[in-house]
Amino acid sequence: MTQSQGHTVKSFDDDLRQLRSLISEMGGLAQEQITAAIDALTRRDSEGAMKVVAQDKSIDALEAEVERFAVRIIALRAPMADDLREVIAALKISSVLERIGDYAKNIAKRTPVLAENSIIQPVSILPEMGRIVARMVRDVLDAFVNRDAELAVAVCQRDKQVDDFYNSLFRALLTYMMENPHHITASAHLLFIAKNLERVGDHATNVAEMVHYGVTGEHIGERPKADATPYVNITPGDTAEGA
Amino acid sequence: MTQSQGHTVKSFDDDLRQLRSLISEMGGLAQEQITAAIDALTRRDSEGAMKVVAQDKSIDALEAEVERFAVRIIALRAPMADDLREVIAALKISSVLERIGDYAKNIAKRTPVLAENSIIQPVSILPEMGRIVARMVRDVLDAFVNRDAELAVAVCQRDKQVDDFYNSLFRALLTYMMENPHHITASAHLLFIAKNLERVGDHATNVAEMVHYGVTGEHIGERPKADATPYVNITPGDTAEGA
Repeated sequence: MTQSQGHTVKSFDDDLRQLRSLISEMGGLAQEQITAAIDALTRRDSEGAMKVVAQDKSIDALEAEVERFAVRIIALRAPMADDLREVIAALKISSVLERIGDYAKNIAKRTPVLAENSIIQPVSILPEMGRIVARMVRDVLDAFVNRDAELAVAVCQRDKQVDDFYNSLFRALLTYMMENPHHITASAHLLFIAKNLERVGDHATNVAEMVHYGVTGEHIGERPKADATPYVNITPGDTAEGA
Repeated sequence: MTQSQGHTVKSFDDDLRQLRSLISEMGGLAQEQITAAIDALTRRDSEGAMKVVAQDKSIDALEAEVERFAVRIIALRAPMADDLREVIAALKISSVLERIGDYAKNIAKRTPVLAENSIIQPVSILPEMGRIVARMVRDVLDAFVNRDAELAVAVCQRDKQVDDFYNSLFRALLTYMMENPHHITASAHLLFIAKNLERVGDHATNVAEMVHYGVTGEHIGERPKADATPYVNITPGDTAEGA
């Protein structure tokens, strides 16, 4: 960390520590929300889902707090170069975490409809996919707080697995729809839920790239595109296993 | 605009003007990308769609430029309070525009699959929905550049219409899927496309709220939630007209 003009290093570092701790808190909450949303979904617990929806306000409030605090740090401390970039990175990360919270809320909002419908098999894949992305969120925040470039790389690498989950869910859900029109509504909502989880993985990966760049000054090599394979045609002849 | 210490008002204003003009350029591009993506989709023009995908890099590059420039303004000019908030707002808006570009790219990526499938009727609603959201993007950028709070309010109000489009498309697409399993793949992609446009409307609305707050210091009254009605059950008995 570079030393900035016009203030002692110690107090700027204190501010930065506090900013990081706010981001950490926000990340913890975002991760909990993803886990709680998927948990409510698999237990068909509409009440639990509504708690997730209500809890989203706390993440929004934390984002506003991060912004106010970041603006105050910049205004009072006038940080230079690297320090300033770190504050700007915190701002960007907080807006990503707010979006991750929105995805959890969106998943939770779909739970009551799914609770009304018969359980369809692909639901069983979601908890594992949810666990992976929630852990990516946790790890990328640890990477940010501890300036751990290696952990950031590890998070990026896990995104491939999330994409594989998404692609296989996309195919499975479409074939379920084809087999029985009574599965269509539930499957459509599950498609969006799977997409939401896939997006959380993407966002965690974007943050990991930011963290890596912040720590090393180098970009992580181009990662393979997130959602290439599901742009395929699936026809009613395909089966859930074959697609 | 408040006067900041340590620099003449004129040169900071010049910087701000240049920052706003970058944002404007980015917004114009985002709007064009939405329009071009929907245009390629309705013409079943896979080649045109691939141009939209390629063009997304220009928006990403502009976002990086906005960030570099904003960091330089903050570091060199040390803007105070209102000026600083304006620079931070520009940063946030550029990241929203980058996301809008991503939605256009995502729509474009689905075009080749849709070009392979038979045309289904709900596609005809998309151009109008696309026009509305592209215009919201243009107008909210005008509102930002001209600090026009009234136009920001008008943009927010139009979001209701986008949500109505989305809700009726969601229902129509699900009933299309139920009527004929050969419509399922195309309908699933169209569901995501409709959702993407709905999200663009949401993002434009979020920016409008930011602009309004920046100009007036007041929040626009709580807007109705974007996506409440589609969380409904649609069963195979429903028809496209009745749902």
